[in-house]
Amino acid sequence: MRIAIDAMGGDHAPEVNVRGALLAAEEWKDVELILVGDAERMKPYLSDAPSNVQALHADEVIAADDEPVRAVRRKKNASMVVAGRMVREKQADAMISAGNTGALMTTGLLIIGRIEGIERPGLAPVLPTLDGNGVLALDLGANMDASPEHLLQYGIMGSIYRQRVHGINRPRVGLLNVGTEEMKGNELTKAAFGLLKNGPIHFVGNVEARDLMQGTCDVVVCDGFVGNILLKTMEGTASGIMSALKTEFTKSLWSKLAAAVLKPGLSAFKKKLDYTEYGGAPFLGIDGVLIKSHGSSDAHAIKNAVRQARIALQNELVSSISTEISRKRDVKE
Amino acid sequence: MRIAIDAMGGDHAPEVNVRGALLAAEEWKDVELILVGDAERMKPYLSDAPSNVQALHADEVIAADDEPVRAVRRKKNASMVVAGRMVREKQADAMISAGNTGALMTTGLLIIGRIEGIERPGLAPVLPTLDGNGVLALDLGANMDASPEHLLQYGIMGSIYRQRVHGINRPRVGLLNVGTEEMKGNELTKAAFGLLKNGPIHFVGNVEARDLMQGTCDVVVCDGFVGNILLKTMEGTASGIMSALKTEFTKSLWSKLAAAVLKPGLSAFKKKLDYTEYGGAPFLGIDGVLIKSHGSSDAHAIKNAVRQARIALQNELVSSISTEISRKRDVKE
Repeated sequence: MRIAIDAMGGDHAPEVNVRGALLAAEEWKDVELILVGDAERMKPYLSDAPSNVQALHADEVIAADDEPVRAVRRKKNASMVVAGRMVREKQADAMISAGNTGALMTTGLLIIGRIEGIERPGLAPVLPTLDGNGVLALDLGANMDASPEHLLQYGIMGSIYRQRVHGINRPRVGLLNVGTEEMKGNELTKAAFGLLKNGPIHFVGNVEARDLMQGTCDVVVCDGFVGNILLKTMEGTASGIMSALKTEFTKSLWSKLAAAVLKPGLSAFKKKLDYTEYGGAPFLGIDGVLIKSHGSSDAHAIKNAVRQARIALQNELVSSISTEISRKRDVKE
Repeated sequence: MRIAIDAMGGDHAPEVNVRGALLAAEEWKDVELILVGDAERMKPYLSDAPSNVQALHADEVIAADDEPVRAVRRKKNASMVVAGRMVREKQADAMISAGNTGALMTTGLLIIGRIEGIERPGLAPVLPTLDGNGVLALDLGANMDASPEHLLQYGIMGSIYRQRVHGINRPRVGLLNVGTEEMKGNELTKAAFGLLKNGPIHFVGNVEARDLMQGTCDVVVCDGFVGNILLKTMEGTASGIMSALKTEFTKSLWSKLAAAVLKPGLSAFKKKLDYTEYGGAPFLGIDGVLIKSHGSSDAHAIKNAVRQARIALQNELVSSISTEISRKRDVKE
């Protein structure tokens, strides 16, 4: 299987992208990796590259602050766009990027294209839970406004991803809502409830934001606006608490000593809360495997994204989604 | 000024409600408090009541799990409904309840009524910030779906509340959104941005959920669905982190000792995160002062709610909102 890596995306590109690719290529010999980016800048890290790693020169780069749609349309030779084109033209089966999220979603939509029958692809990171299993949340920002039908498709795609990539047998799908009772919610969630209930998924009903961290479901669906609020509130609250704790812990000599004793536990715990530890976010509904790695990814994170893409390919993620969606449409017609 | 207190609402009613009223009556002699509830059950705590406290018997109670609209319509002699009726009939200037939130909002809407020109009253608790000033957030659950015009009214009411009750000179009003740029958001926030920008408030633009805890604004507006997700995610993340920390801290004898050293600081910090510490939530847009205290309120929290109601009355909160809203309508016509 062939996986294209946008070597120029992310805060530490291209170094960590190349190093991560080398680590992955060493570990999985059945994978062929194509690093797309500035050949000159990649070169210093490629001296010991194994035979299943190639470099493909692309002379443009999409920056973190580029306006997504314009950048993808104009920079036709950007590393991200070239990687996307490889997937569309079946020269690669999957692509990975740690670059501009908006531009990557645009690349997915405009360059690679959607699976037939999917109205809106959704970005689906795994959010941290206390039990360490995480919860796949979608959509987290690809589409601000959603219809009930979109939420159903998110549920189906998320469920298939959890099965195929994480090996969860009968993933519990929840609808993010303001209460657990069936009649709760806004117009969108009230209308989506019935669709999800009758959908080809293991729907466990409404779930409240406050219970998500307890691991009440394996997949949670919401529109992209609400998903963004959820993710950013988690991040803001966690980082606010952590910085305030740090202040408490450095108040006196005694508290500094005490904090030193607790430090290893705290670090392990901080890692558990860090959703970037759970791997990249798949952009589900695109006609190819597309993994968004966090901008702050290190080589280890890039390697993990390759692992994710590899499992998704081995277990035929895209064709499973396609089959399920077309089956649903056949029933309708 | 006369303040009616629903003596039967909340987890520890009527004891804490009565004790809280007594504390308030001792402190503020210009306040007359009317405790509405089961006379027999209030009696044991009323023996030393000062002269500015009265009890008014009401023989029904709205329970925490009662269906709000039905309960308010049918239980005409419930303590909450009687208190609401007193406000409508100008026998009281304000009311306080720690009971069923949905029923209290229904009491506000159906029994007391809205300020003329207000389309949707909004529930407005203060959420914790790291600087301790908090941020007044509305709407937090009164109306699931909002129009751009509703968000503008939330901004105006929240701004007046922060000025009148918290003494903030020129409150910064933010629009909860997925990014800070003007064109960001869903259909609702995109349309609301222009209205807020031209409104009679100090609008500081879009604010992201992750920055709220940093105290980037004094008032934040959003629809009730999103507000609920925001509040519950904050609660869930904070309590998740706290329980996980507890596990870390009790792992070994050393960590237990270390945690003991840090305990006072941690408790102070936990209090800072607890939004119930910031007082009750006003239900803004109702034609009378209505304060929702948390269900878990103790006597101290009830006393604080009286303080809030008293300041709101002294500073003519309701007529200020009414004047501002009618001025806006005059300009329009």
